[in-house]
Amino acid sequence: MYFGSIEAGGTKFVCAIGDEELNIVARESFPTTTPEETMTDVINFFKEYQAELASIGVGSFGPIDIHPDSATYGYITSTPKLAWQNYNFVGALKAAFDLPVAWTTDVNAAAYGEYYYGHGKGKRSVVYYTIGTGVGGGAIQNGHFIEGFSHPEMGHMLVVPHKDDHFEGACPFHGNCLEGMAAGPAVEKRLGMKGQDVPADHPYWEQEAYYIAQCAYNTTLMLSPDVIIFGGGVMKQAHMMERVHRHFTELLKNYVKTPDLAAYIVTPKLVDNAATIGCLAMAKDLLK
Amino acid sequence: MYFGSIEAGGTKFVCAIGDEELNIVARESFPTTTPEETMTDVINFFKEYQAELASIGVGSFGPIDIHPDSATYGYITSTPKLAWQNYNFVGALKAAFDLPVAWTTDVNAAAYGEYYYGHGKGKRSVVYYTIGTGVGGGAIQNGHFIEGFSHPEMGHMLVVPHKDDHFEGACPFHGNCLEGMAAGPAVEKRLGMKGQDVPADHPYWEQEAYYIAQCAYNTTLMLSPDVIIFGGGVMKQAHMMERVHRHFTELLKNYVKTPDLAAYIVTPKLVDNAATIGCLAMAKDLLK
Repeated sequence: MYFGSIEAGGTKFVCAIGDEELNIVARESFPTTTPEETMTDVINFFKEYQAELASIGVGSFGPIDIHPDSATYGYITSTPKLAWQNYNFVGALKAAFDLPVAWTTDVNAAAYGEYYYGHGKGKRSVVYYTIGTGVGGGAIQNGHFIEGFSHPEMGHMLVVPHKDDHFEGACPFHGNCLEGMAAGPAVEKRLGMKGQDVPADHPYWEQEAYYIAQCAYNTTLMLSPDVIIFGGGVMKQAHMMERVHRHFTELLKNYVKTPDLAAYIVTPKLVDNAATIGCLAMAKDLLK
Repeated sequence: MYFGSIEAGGTKFVCAIGDEELNIVARESFPTTTPEETMTDVINFFKEYQAELASIGVGSFGPIDIHPDSATYGYITSTPKLAWQNYNFVGALKAAFDLPVAWTTDVNAAAYGEYYYGHGKGKRSVVYYTIGTGVGGGAIQNGHFIEGFSHPEMGHMLVVPHKDDHFEGACPFHGNCLEGMAAGPAVEKRLGMKGQDVPADHPYWEQEAYYIAQCAYNTTLMLSPDVIIFGGGVMKQAHMMERVHRHFTELLKNYVKTPDLAAYIVTPKLVDNAATIGCLAMAKDLLK
């Protein structure tokens, strides 16, 4: 038996096939263009495995409709990617394969992957952020995603500007929210170069760490999770985690006693596979 | 059959007896002094109903230990109220009554009350804040409290200072966190009078509403709940809700489509009874 995974991102779709132990047996990426083109690639990919395919898990860019009783359940809704606005993603998959489909956001899928097989394994409450071209966050408690009228949009929480940072922010909606201050485009707009090209000893990284620490601080006080996982490009820089831990400690002032920081604020154990493993796990859990 | 409720606050304990429909049939308050004195009053109150008492629900000031498998489960832990530090609250009740005891924070209890019989009834995800001498918050999703390594301490989330507010903040830990800027002592320290004495047309209320709106904004993006309820003294002022709704709308910039604000950001339907009803409901649910 095989499970399918679709990590539907803004620039590419990563499709994968996993076996019953969630080993990845095939994987392919397709550029995100139009639903017609991209979904044709996706469906052709899965067609090859159709005979053994039991279910599919999707982690999608958003916003998406997650309410099973909604008329537009399974749709991408008001995305700025016009070709994908009001696109019936789950419907297209079901029309092609008539299989059970699990449906959530890309960051929720990554949180699920870490919860299943990563730093969240055996834990009760797991929060996952990605700090990349945007900032997104997802959370799981006791196996259920944190959600209500919709899925969270944690990347747009408010942050307090660093005293030495006079950047006005790059979020088209909120200016200087977390994403507007700390995501890739904000770094590039401030410094005139991409984050990956900014030297490790550049003073800006202290400011970036301060914003990420505020995110960890607010998450600690709002959700008290067992672990906070930061994925995405910025946190791959080896010097960042020490900075984030230090700023977090300064902000928290021992107000609550968190788990040991080395195990509490971490990067993904599954590295870049968290969302793919998460989608496979969601697909598998559908059959429980 | 009767259920017991203890709303254990920093200045008083409110004890109540409810019937099977959670009608309050008796209620009494006792000053919060020492565990010896206050708990003697509490136990004497319940003794009268002991023959019919089936279970007790407690919503306590904190921080408290909520982990059933912890050696100090049921304790008040590191509170600044020294007499109550490391006090085995649940143990004292069980020693006196040998009944099932439900145990959570005071704000979680209020959230549960609203979830059961108030503005959260029939909703999936409910968040309750109190803005009073401190700021506290609790959340419920699908009948479970949001928690992990501990219970949340939402009142200490970070806020962005209002451009016209140069107050340094009154939180002994964090200075200008939400509680440090918006709770009663902060208002009094800024204006030299208690919040209840500040006229409705005082310009400060716009700043207060801005901080509360930031709280609602962060809550919306972190939890996407179905309803956010603000209890406590400040929000009893009739002019406040319009201000909070207006600042919230300005902050959100239509980024996500919340439920209609009149039903989304509200004051408690149970007014001052939310925590008492919540404790009774928790006590009742223990017997399910």
